[in-house]
Amino acid sequence: MAKIVVLGAGVMGTALCVPAADNGHKVLLVGTPLDQDIVVTMRRPGGIHPKLDAAPPAGVEAIRFDELRSEHLANADIIVVGVSSPGIGWVTDILNRVMTEACPIAFVTKGLESAGSAVSTYAQTLPSRIPLMSAFIGIGGPCIARELANRLPTACIYACEDISVAEQLAAIMQTDYYRLSVTTDVTGVEACAALKNFYAIGVSAMQTRYPDQRRADGQSKNPTAAVFTQATLEMARLCERLGGQTTTAFGLAGLGDLHVTVGGGRNSRLGQGLGTGRTVVEMLSSELFGETVEGVDTARVLANMALEKQHTDEGPLAYFPLASAIMDAVLQQKRFSLDFSNLIVQ
Amino acid sequence: MAKIVVLGAGVMGTALCVPAADNGHKVLLVGTPLDQDIVVTMRRPGGIHPKLDAAPPAGVEAIRFDELRSEHLANADIIVVGVSSPGIGWVTDILNRVMTEACPIAFVTKGLESAGSAVSTYAQTLPSRIPLMSAFIGIGGPCIARELANRLPTACIYACEDISVAEQLAAIMQTDYYRLSVTTDVTGVEACAALKNFYAIGVSAMQTRYPDQRRADGQSKNPTAAVFTQATLEMARLCERLGGQTTTAFGLAGLGDLHVTVGGGRNSRLGQGLGTGRTVVEMLSSELFGETVEGVDTARVLANMALEKQHTDEGPLAYFPLASAIMDAVLQQKRFSLDFSNLIVQ
Repeated sequence: MAKIVVLGAGVMGTALCVPAADNGHKVLLVGTPLDQDIVVTMRRPGGIHPKLDAAPPAGVEAIRFDELRSEHLANADIIVVGVSSPGIGWVTDILNRVMTEACPIAFVTKGLESAGSAVSTYAQTLPSRIPLMSAFIGIGGPCIARELANRLPTACIYACEDISVAEQLAAIMQTDYYRLSVTTDVTGVEACAALKNFYAIGVSAMQTRYPDQRRADGQSKNPTAAVFTQATLEMARLCERLGGQTTTAFGLAGLGDLHVTVGGGRNSRLGQGLGTGRTVVEMLSSELFGETVEGVDTARVLANMALEKQHTDEGPLAYFPLASAIMDAVLQQKRFSLDFSNLIVQ
Repeated sequence: MAKIVVLGAGVMGTALCVPAADNGHKVLLVGTPLDQDIVVTMRRPGGIHPKLDAAPPAGVEAIRFDELRSEHLANADIIVVGVSSPGIGWVTDILNRVMTEACPIAFVTKGLESAGSAVSTYAQTLPSRIPLMSAFIGIGGPCIARELANRLPTACIYACEDISVAEQLAAIMQTDYYRLSVTTDVTGVEACAALKNFYAIGVSAMQTRYPDQRRADGQSKNPTAAVFTQATLEMARLCERLGGQTTTAFGLAGLGDLHVTVGGGRNSRLGQGLGTGRTVVEMLSSELFGETVEGVDTARVLANMALEKQHTDEGPLAYFPLASAIMDAVLQQKRFSLDFSNLIVQ
């Protein structure tokens, strides 16, 4: 039986407790300052997470962050960080305060950070900020938290420079509904995890941009499929530029997670709004008011990279036409416009 | 102005006339024996293809197959074959009867053919059967005919061993809504064009297999995304085994066309039926009675290939678990069952 500490009692942190507890491990779920009410609710007999319609399985103990002590982390096999990117500073602080022994840490948190024109993933920036982290593990792949909590099947990917650490964690977490593969391409998995939110905005815009009244859902299909392909190819190019492998973008962390992100969520809703001709400001001040749309943050970071044109014998060629169209809409408040004549799809 | 002859006045053949005519080329559309009524209808003033809600553009002349003479093909720049796979024998016969000079021929027809355990694409089998074909061009990518005929944007890929021939045809056909890239990987494009119908059955089964009552569309998203990824990876492996390149499967001809095929059509309807627990026989004797489901034919051909297990240090490993699950359902009349614990996704 392994000992697992999960930081963050939001939907994803809580959902990850389910396969771990189903495997008979001891799981401690630690709420953030934003999760105080959730922890209280879950501690009641039969208590259910307010945003998950599944009860936490037996074997999961929930505590508040102000109850967390160094003893809780003693002999932990793994710490899993399940917060979203705005919480990563809080995670760093609390871990450095309570960790007294080295431990591997797995992150579902995704984000890119920039310093000047250099863009880095958490795999590159967090290890030096958390000295007692013995290994950084990145978690990628299609995983809507509520579906995982309800044990609907999916497949994800765990990445660590030391493949044996990724394999150990995968062995702890894998169930027959939560299938896991492993890779050493931690930079690629982290890059794709952030990029897929950004590209989901552009693909989702195609779901509303070209109506087709003869379809039951009112939407044409060719534009979305063509732009989904374009998004995957650009994600592979960007992944490589950030130091990852293109094959990672063609797998669960890339196109797999892009697929599920286009299927729902805040980035998708933003994109669908853009597809109908609304602007980002209009969307963020109405339907999405007060919500974190992670693809918008990714767009800001990507703006620091020079997504320059590629030069060919015939002259310059836009190499990231979809990224450029999304950035124009998100950062310059233009109405979303993707000129298909700019696509270079192979 | 180029001269283009399109064989087959079904939805795809007729739709391909639209970009060609929009570019000002002279287009002759030749109906098959199944298209006699369509040709009569389209010839009337303002005549509309009965299955397309768009009028053929000016510059398209439609004739019946029994009106086709060698003179019609004289000085043609390209012949485009737009029939489905059951019509390929008829195409071969009529072309050999009326062709008197060499001409490149492009095919949207997709299919795999087997001789013993050897599986071949049309790119490999048709050239010897049509001696006056000076070049074989394969057409792939996401392209629902009715959407193309209505000038909704998409991106496709033209493949020819001689890249300059693919480029010439792309230059004739490309418009701002019909974007074209080119490749020499004609075997890969042809393999993907056939395989995507087969894999769409398995992905579409996931759209109904795991209901989620809290979704507007009633369906969970993780299983479909995970299996879409698995389908893409298996398609890449099979593409390589058939002599094509894996990158082709990760582009428009592979995942792009798979995406649109899962979005609708007969293969998708079959898969969605399988996902609810019905068998192939039940589906083909009710909703799909009398219809050509091309993925079923592909399954029969793939059965001749030994999709053997891969051997690792730990023993044999199923390398095509999704293909195996689809073949069990299609060929052995089992209820569709994909064990996620068999997935090897990276």
